[in-house]
Amino acid sequence: MEIGKYPLIALPLDDRDLESKLSQAKSKGIDLIELRIDMFSSTQSDYVKDISRKVKDSGFGIIGTVRSVEEGGLKDLKDSERIELFEAVSDYADIIDIELRSERLHEDLVKLCRDKEKFLLVSYHDFEKTPSEDEIQEIIDRSSFGDIIKFAFMVKDVEDVGRILSVTHKNRDKKIVSIGMGDLGKITRVAGFFFGSLITYTYIGESVAPGQIEVKELIKELKFYGLRS
Amino acid sequence: MEIGKYPLIALPLDDRDLESKLSQAKSKGIDLIELRIDMFSSTQSDYVKDISRKVKDSGFGIIGTVRSVEEGGLKDLKDSERIELFEAVSDYADIIDIELRSERLHEDLVKLCRDKEKFLLVSYHDFEKTPSEDEIQEIIDRSSFGDIIKFAFMVKDVEDVGRILSVTHKNRDKKIVSIGMGDLGKITRVAGFFFGSLITYTYIGESVAPGQIEVKELIKELKFYGLRS
Repeated sequence: MEIGKYPLIALPLDDRDLESKLSQAKSKGIDLIELRIDMFSSTQSDYVKDISRKVKDSGFGIIGTVRSVEEGGLKDLKDSERIELFEAVSDYADIIDIELRSERLHEDLVKLCRDKEKFLLVSYHDFEKTPSEDEIQEIIDRSSFGDIIKFAFMVKDVEDVGRILSVTHKNRDKKIVSIGMGDLGKITRVAGFFFGSLITYTYIGESVAPGQIEVKELIKELKFYGLRS
Repeated sequence: MEIGKYPLIALPLDDRDLESKLSQAKSKGIDLIELRIDMFSSTQSDYVKDISRKVKDSGFGIIGTVRSVEEGGLKDLKDSERIELFEAVSDYADIIDIELRSERLHEDLVKLCRDKEKFLLVSYHDFEKTPSEDEIQEIIDRSSFGDIIKFAFMVKDVEDVGRILSVTHKNRDKKIVSIGMGDLGKITRVAGFFFGSLITYTYIGESVAPGQIEVKELIKELKFYGLRS
């Protein structure tokens, strides 16, 4: 898995029907599985390790995510519980996702990722709006203690898209994942790579985020625009 | 025809099989016909007027173009001949296209467009490369005596696309048409509008420019990304 050569396709998954979903993901060209640990049926450390190992053994890169409730996570976990889950997934993950807003966990996760040589992805979501250019830049700057910076904003008009992707291009010296959510934001999931957005999130069957494009359609679009062979 | 509400679709045509092509263009949702007068079988003034009237009467907006040989035109015409052709089309055209490099014609065409209340579109083509950000900005600034500024650059890598569209977004207070030519530039023909590019050029049957998307596919893509209803 080489970051930056072509847009990596990430599929968020919980632990339901895992084997069937992994086999579909394999046949459809998914590069990364985002394990949404906050959506797992159990958050026992050993269970999370077991799932992570299965995903790794299937040949996928892994993004380990324990989404906070404030940004759409399903379980309201204590800091210590979240840290334990990050540790559990970190033996198998390539990337650990932590929200910029989960400040109390930053120090521990920086250390975890440094020790285990993993990428720390710092994420920011706004499900209401796309901030101004200056505000987006500030989010990027505050996130730059991470290796990868991810931001997802709700798009309400066409200029929101132009703004998100222009700021992405301006910061192309960093590793960025930028997403415009909502129907008008769909274009960012295909065109983002031209501006330096490195990962695009997709779904199989049922979408978990507004404006995501189903994997078969997504790959067709990426091919049409010369981004996948 | 309202500029800026949604991406206007322009179809370049010469005078061959005109009626059949206009009827196809009508059924397929074309907004503007670009009359490539330099490709006409005759450049008699009355003939050009006659063709222009037919296109206008079919309900299309018209871009009147007499492309210079240096930027891909087919006929090597004298300045006085080109002016005569611009005058001939101008009674029916909405937009007159003149190359930034055709400097000797600028003064006459500014006057022509002012007198007849037409948009003057100042165009620039580089069939070899995409210039730097500063160079693109300089082209825009030098073109700003026109009402609409059009630039088309050959795209060689993904960053060329990001650069073209980011500069477009930066100049969104102006009326811009921006195009990345070549296969990797195809995305600009769909996504350009998010950055403020107002017109997208297409073809029916046989393409005249590298990376153009056939009209049926183009409209499908524009709909998919929420830009046409």
